[in-house]
Amino acid sequence: MQMPELVFTKTISESLNHYCSLNQIKNAIILCDSNTSVHCLPLISELNFKVVAFPAGEVSKSFEQVNFILNQLIDLNADRQTLLINLGGGVVSDLGGFVASIYKRGIPFINIPTSLLGMVDASIGGKTGIDFLNYKNIIGVFNHPKAIFISSEFLKTLPQDELKSAWSEIIKTASIANIGLFHTIESNGDLDEVIKECVLTKSRLVEMDFKDQNIRQLLNFGHTIGHALESYHLEINKPIHHGYAVAYGMLMELKLALHIGNINKIEFNRVSELIKLKVGYDFSGTDLFDFYSKYLSADKKNNDSNISFSLPKSIGNGQYQWKVSLDQLKNWKIEGII
Amino acid sequence: MQMPELVFTKTISESLNHYCSLNQIKNAIILCDSNTSVHCLPLISELNFKVVAFPAGEVSKSFEQVNFILNQLIDLNADRQTLLINLGGGVVSDLGGFVASIYKRGIPFINIPTSLLGMVDASIGGKTGIDFLNYKNIIGVFNHPKAIFISSEFLKTLPQDELKSAWSEIIKTASIANIGLFHTIESNGDLDEVIKECVLTKSRLVEMDFKDQNIRQLLNFGHTIGHALESYHLEINKPIHHGYAVAYGMLMELKLALHIGNINKIEFNRVSELIKLKVGYDFSGTDLFDFYSKYLSADKKNNDSNISFSLPKSIGNGQYQWKVSLDQLKNWKIEGII
Repeated sequence: MQMPELVFTKTISESLNHYCSLNQIKNAIILCDSNTSVHCLPLISELNFKVVAFPAGEVSKSFEQVNFILNQLIDLNADRQTLLINLGGGVVSDLGGFVASIYKRGIPFINIPTSLLGMVDASIGGKTGIDFLNYKNIIGVFNHPKAIFISSEFLKTLPQDELKSAWSEIIKTASIANIGLFHTIESNGDLDEVIKECVLTKSRLVEMDFKDQNIRQLLNFGHTIGHALESYHLEINKPIHHGYAVAYGMLMELKLALHIGNINKIEFNRVSELIKLKVGYDFSGTDLFDFYSKYLSADKKNNDSNISFSLPKSIGNGQYQWKVSLDQLKNWKIEGII
Repeated sequence: MQMPELVFTKTISESLNHYCSLNQIKNAIILCDSNTSVHCLPLISELNFKVVAFPAGEVSKSFEQVNFILNQLIDLNADRQTLLINLGGGVVSDLGGFVASIYKRGIPFINIPTSLLGMVDASIGGKTGIDFLNYKNIIGVFNHPKAIFISSEFLKTLPQDELKSAWSEIIKTASIANIGLFHTIESNGDLDEVIKECVLTKSRLVEMDFKDQNIRQLLNFGHTIGHALESYHLEINKPIHHGYAVAYGMLMELKLALHIGNINKIEFNRVSELIKLKVGYDFSGTDLFDFYSKYLSADKKNNDSNISFSLPKSIGNGQYQWKVSLDQLKNWKIEGII
């Protein structure tokens, strides 16, 4: 499947206008949430496209919102030539990408990530989808946007909290596939450079394995436990930020890697410390294994009854499809608390 | 995208068993409707797969049933290696194919069409989907089954009505792409041969143009008006059989072709008469244009404000993307009744 065009820009409105002229887009609809409609839409409002907005938050990754957006597309007479512009973080690109993929069996869409997490992770890779019965992303399709526009202009619109949690995915990508990027982060390198290098690293993995059957699974480091934790938090109606869940997942899975001798103590400490430093969320005393473990068995990446993990062997060098049975995991309980 | 394996068989249970062994299928779930669970399931029940059944009928092509089936898949612990077996007519393969395509971003599925219409048309081509707000198939994805099993054993289980309406699609395929098949139908050739030739003809068109952007659109002959009529019938809660809607659509569109000089009177009569003879539905006195015309503008194949038609120029030789504006159509009103 054709990879999306990657556009790194500092003038989003101009770049988008240029893209639409070049691709002869006659009809476009901007999809945003209740936050990005206020904070981000003004940056491209001169383009005068129609707008559909839904309530911000992970709870919107639901069939209810799919229905709402489909209704809007029909009302706006969207046809197969209409471009859907997903303006927002991961929720907007996941939900918007899914709707664009199933409306009239697929209309073109582009992603304009407005959060750091969206830029470095969610908007890239063609994984679209929604949650169902508290299972994260259990419904969806693989489908690439036509283009992804990365502009750090949007980062000024974000609360500090959003910026910090996104470091999880950046450190993850560096840990399993790019030691140079890891060094840049450790030495507080330029943010625009970090974003670009992270986007390119993820894109390369996606291009090699779009359907997530082998090497792309490296990107799941921290996500096996992270997703289970998110599912549990959805169940109790207290959603946790994806970035924090992944940070927790990475810290736990690093312990697993250390336990099985997959990573040495020095590198274990280096990755763990960078996560704690950059993400800065206090996980101490957290032991939720008994609550989230049932969600581990529903993970999409499993087959038979084993749980599949991706773990770093050393910094920049990951290993995927490391199998652990749920029973083994229960016996071990990931050595208690962080 | 890889074309499905086509299996023509007279011993479905044996062929399916062979397929599952060969492909090392450990876990399979049969999806059927309330009719095929009674009449068709017994033919493969010795294989002892799990079964999910939903109420028969076009009304089941809904988000409500998508939700129900997804719930069942989760309850049955379906993972990405689980095979979904769609056992039924077009509703089962459209709905089951769609659910298989979005569950965990896609699990493998096969189609076992049990109706003549399913065999010659719906099960082939990778168009999956459901209806929404009375718009037929407006939600869905393009995705091929791994295999399609064609066995005329199932035809014995069908009411006469089902058999007759399916002739619409067979005559359609012959009219626009296979004059040899048209002759075979006219001369009452062997049904198994007709089915096989029709399946192969449609498969060739699909292989040339999977995403329905050019030559595959030939297969839409009768469907522009046929779908609009079906949508209208859904709106008034009196669903019409797809085959009858297509027969009506073909008869109307043939008039359009004659009117614009696209087909000569002799061939017009030959196709029209064969439709009336084989489908045998009495359309005389029917003029529903004012009721269904609003649905013409929502057709997936349209762009800008034109309606797109596929029409035969002569038997076996069709033409696609013939554009008519809704205003032109309104002025003409397809010359009144049939």
